Amino acid sequence: MPIVTIQQFPRDLAQKRELARRVTEAFVEVYDLKPESVQVFFNEIDGEGWAKGGVMGCDRSPT
Amino acid sequence: MPIVTIQQFPRDLAQKRELARRVTEAFVEVYDLKPESVQVFFNEIDGEGWAKGGVMGCDRSPT
Amino acid sequence: MPIVTIQQFPRDLAQKRELARRVTEAFVEVYDLKPESVQVFFNEIDGEGWAKGGVMGCDRSPT
Amino acid sequence: MPIVTIQQFPRDLAQKRELARRVTEAFVEVYDLKPESVQVFFNEIDGEGWAKGGVMGCDRSPT
Amino acid sequence: MPIVTIQQFPRDLAQKRELARRVTEAFVEVYDLKPESVQVFFNEIDGEGWAKGGVMGCDRSPT
Amino acid sequence: MPIVTIQQFPRDLAQKRELARRVTEAFVEVYDLKPESVQVFFNEIDGEGWAKGGVMGCDRSPT
Repeated sequence: MPIVTIQQFPRDLAQKRELARRVTEAFVEVYDLKPESVQVFFNEIDGEGWAKGGVMGCDRSPT
Repeated sequence: MPIVTIQQFPRDLAQKRELARRVTEAFVEVYDLKPESVQVFFNEIDGEGWAKGGVMGCDRSPT
Repeated sequence: MPIVTIQQFPRDLAQKRELARRVTEAFVEVYDLKPESVQVFFNEIDGEGWAKGGVMGCDRSPT
Repeated sequence: MPIVTIQQFPRDLAQKRELARRVTEAFVEVYDLKPESVQVFFNEIDGEGWAKGGVMGCDRSPT
Repeated sequence: MPIVTIQQFPRDLAQKRELARRVTEAFVEVYDLKPESVQVFFNEIDGEGWAKGGVMGCDRSPT
Repeated sequence: MPIVTIQQFPRDLAQKRELARRVTEAFVEVYDLKPESVQVFFNEIDGEGWAKGGVMGCDRSPT
């Protein structure tokens, strides 16, 4: 522990790599943990698997 | 919030669209929330990713 | 299945009772399922367990 | 209930079949449940969806 | 990994201890893993946090 | 989105406040998002709800 699960829209590997590095660093510095104790999971969802305001992501107009 | 996560067998988009609309409506009416505060996630699992009674879905006989 | 998990602020039992009834009804009607196949879990989080915009719920001013 | 969710690296069906059988058996024997009350979900993650120690699985050297 | 999350009704510590031991053993034997790589989380839910068939657990008659 | 769920041992509010602030900042900078789009949930587990290596946290000797 800790185990971090991130639900997000799909992102490319470079962004996930940088995000995981920074999130892990936050845990190491704030909680005083060893980096290897931190695991991060990316759970990527597209617009056919998510709705907001009762409207599927794929049906929403871009904002 | 609220965040609603639905684990289900794969469904077509039309069904998910209607389901998300009705689930969101239930939150708006019962909890008196704005629709945009409700997010729904569909997490679809097939018969090779799920077991019941110790038997994988893909090995179960249809009922 | 389906299994529905709802992350929400704490609500009283009467509201959860009505919400579970209506969410289950939506699945029965849209997916043509038996009611007993639908399970709903409430995962209630208070302002010390949730942050938005980088600010803990208990530190946010009411809107 | 119970509902068992397993986050793991991809495994072949034969391994998941055996694992689900044994995990379900553990619940039946320890909690004295009927097998059909136990559901197991496999959530498989590859090296582009998981990081440990701030390093993506796909970037880690094999150990 | 693997990370095992168990949603269940409250159980006493002795039962969870035995269940965790057996579930971990299943992973070690079926997947050929070291025991320390297996983590098990118990997420206990009572009858005011769960509904089946649209009826809250606390309102269901015992079966 | 994104929605970040953190499974961790109990921490005091000051640590969670700082962690949420830094995790959100990472998303804003790496993914170029508005802070308000990021939600963080803390799911705290004690030694009677977690096992590693088949041994409950409350039974493990401190390391």
